Amino acid sequence: MPEFLKLISPSEALTLLMGSLPAQEPCGEWVDTLHAVDRVTAEKVLAPCSLPSFTRSSMDGYAVRASDTYGASESIPGYLVLAGEVPMGSGPAFALQPGQAAVIHTGGMLPQNSDAVVALEQTEVARPGEIEILRAVAKGENVIMLGEDVMEGQIVIPGGIRIRPVEVGGCMALGITQIRVAAKPKIGIISSGDEIVPPERQLDPGQVRDVNSYTLSALVTEAGGEPVLYGIVLDRLEVMKASAARALSECQAVVITAGSSASARDKTADAIAALGIPGVLVHGVNVRPGKPTILAVCRNKAVIGLPGNPVSAMVIAGLFVVPVIKKLLGLKVERPTASCLAVLTVNVASQAGREDWIAVKLIPGAAWSGAGEGWLADPIFAKSNLIFSLVAADGLFCISQDATGLDAGELVRVFLL
Amino acid sequence: MPEFLKLISPSEALTLLMGSLPAQEPCGEWVDTLHAVDRVTAEKVLAPCSLPSFTRSSMDGYAVRASDTYGASESIPGYLVLAGEVPMGSGPAFALQPGQAAVIHTGGMLPQNSDAVVALEQTEVARPGEIEILRAVAKGENVIMLGEDVMEGQIVIPGGIRIRPVEVGGCMALGITQIRVAAKPKIGIISSGDEIVPPERQLDPGQVRDVNSYTLSALVTEAGGEPVLYGIVLDRLEVMKASAARALSECQAVVITAGSSASARDKTADAIAALGIPGVLVHGVNVRPGKPTILAVCRNKAVIGLPGNPVSAMVIAGLFVVPVIKKLLGLKVERPTASCLAVLTVNVASQAGREDWIAVKLIPGAAWSGAGEGWLADPIFAKSNLIFSLVAADGLFCISQDATGLDAGELVRVFLL
Repeated sequence: MPEFLKLISPSEALTLLMGSLPAQEPCGEWVDTLHAVDRVTAEKVLAPCSLPSFTRSSMDGYAVRASDTYGASESIPGYLVLAGEVPMGSGPAFALQPGQAAVIHTGGMLPQNSDAVVALEQTEVARPGEIEILRAVAKGENVIMLGEDVMEGQIVIPGGIRIRPVEVGGCMALGITQIRVAAKPKIGIISSGDEIVPPERQLDPGQVRDVNSYTLSALVTEAGGEPVLYGIVLDRLEVMKASAARALSECQAVVITAGSSASARDKTADAIAALGIPGVLVHGVNVRPGKPTILAVCRNKAVIGLPGNPVSAMVIAGLFVVPVIKKLLGLKVERPTASCLAVLTVNVASQAGREDWIAVKLIPGAAWSGAGEGWLADPIFAKSNLIFSLVAADGLFCISQDATGLDAGELVRVFLL
Repeated sequence: MPEFLKLISPSEALTLLMGSLPAQEPCGEWVDTLHAVDRVTAEKVLAPCSLPSFTRSSMDGYAVRASDTYGASESIPGYLVLAGEVPMGSGPAFALQPGQAAVIHTGGMLPQNSDAVVALEQTEVARPGEIEILRAVAKGENVIMLGEDVMEGQIVIPGGIRIRPVEVGGCMALGITQIRVAAKPKIGIISSGDEIVPPERQLDPGQVRDVNSYTLSALVTEAGGEPVLYGIVLDRLEVMKASAARALSECQAVVITAGSSASARDKTADAIAALGIPGVLVHGVNVRPGKPTILAVCRNKAVIGLPGNPVSAMVIAGLFVVPVIKKLLGLKVERPTASCLAVLTVNVASQAGREDWIAVKLIPGAAWSGAGEGWLADPIFAKSNLIFSLVAADGLFCISQDATGLDAGELVRVFLL
């Protein structure tokens, strides 16, 4: 068999693929900030103004000149004359004179010449128009300074980072109602195989429904790309070449799931090789599931041949398609991945020199000192043809290529599906 | 001050709130399976057929009757006559007679009377039309049985669970192109405060832009709800009551962020109390940030008053609004939460009896035995008024109410933002 003559490790394969793709800035587009969650910033965001835009009270109480309170205590209170009340939502119309205080609410704007706030509970009303101060305050106490959150001109969000709800809130606070994000890269998806039919079709003997177009489509969407489905092509070289060439010209990357037979896989490789230079970089990766993976770069775009088995296709898409999408998005700052540590329930063997990805069910309850409840990782041993083995799983963990297995009781990092 | 007379813990408060909401089945709606990711199943999904729908080969090789191979070895091969080749995508037109074998590809349908597959590399061509078998196979070897993934009638997805890409693929494999999911519950969002203006507005002195409507909107969307924005209302009881009553009649739950001053918070509580019975259940929760939280049930719907500070609002929304949305979605099976264990970089003090949520930056690199790279959790100490303190954070961890703090080096579970 011509394939798998030189298997390389997943990390070497990824380095080779990424190194062969051109360094490119992503296309940017403007979107409403409110709808920017999960998009990636195309450029850094600068604060157009300081936040807060005025010095505010963080307490209900009295705005004062701190120096007027020095020496005040419960036994020897200080006395201040009320100059007025700070309205919410507009600036106070008065400035504080020495010996004066002003009623202020949380979030209210400090009057001119005041520099601290005495909390309501540290005061008493002496007589109408006068208050007792029961504790001295330092300059800046119970106050949020102008620009304490953000200074005008400061970088508030770097370029190349994924936007979360908190970034949306931060932008709104600064009046940034539109934000420039990376356009979603189009990822062409082709399923091949003479036995594959669309999901709505009744099955004849020997036929199976297309799964990979849809799991990959969902995965591409989740990673921030825009899936473009090119449907199912027959295992004929000319048909595959034509479909792949069209996808390559219309998309920023192409993913082809191969038919399951060796000859169908060879045809996929031949079709990819015909798309342009440098062509196929990797044919066969030392990983289970997913060995018959093809990684190529044609006309400066990634073309990835995935194994036809649905479980293998998902694992390999996570290892190679998702990084390609991140590169196309210009993602520079990775946020922590959704993963958890779990205690393995049984011994799991693995072949040295090969990276193994094992699907697991996470079971709560393993006590884990200092960090509350932990998880048990219970492997689901199933053939990679069985899509419902993944439906039963919460995530996958990896046995690295230099290990010959892991023992029950060991900690594993489970990446959530 | 009338508020916070009896503070209760977040978990007691949640139990009280959830226990006061009626047990209700969510409204269901049909959606295309392809677009069902992140939706919650409204009912269990049954397999309309078995998967695979026929017995398939998991290898390239020869379909055989296992009994015909017994005793075969490299030194004493068995000999079988070729009956034909199984086409991909349709049933073989022939049945195997004793002493016969058929060429079969991975995924091909086993001919009638065959019950195992000999892998190609365990065979040699003896002469045209005849092969040598170099190893005996057992019945079922290298074969995926009809129904091995799923049997017809089996529950393949339970009701009340969130759909991931793998569930989409599983449904497609079974020809389920539409799926019944819980309708997205409408969550009304009201911001109150005389100092609050819309984000697009230029600020006058004393004004701040609305942040909470947008962070909450994004959070509600992420949790599976449909946010309905009712804008900003002034801190006047009649205005708040009218806006809250309208939101309550149009939505399945209402969230009001209070103005920041004590009197504004009192008005929020009064407005909520006027919406219907049983009314306010909790006023003040023993958590930082977020103490001035109001939990109510009015006319069988949850009404939640959040503190006006953006950080507090996010923390409290995570603790109370998200569980309400999950209940409205009929979510019965929780998937593991995106969290990670991290090693605390510094000592963090906490008041006993109060639950503290601390924002942290996650820094990679702490070696963690057996589970590869770990994380360091570096606390971001900032006032809860500062939205950009969360922008700088990756997640939050909790110091439980019975702890007086945690030491540097302790493991904490960080929930990702």
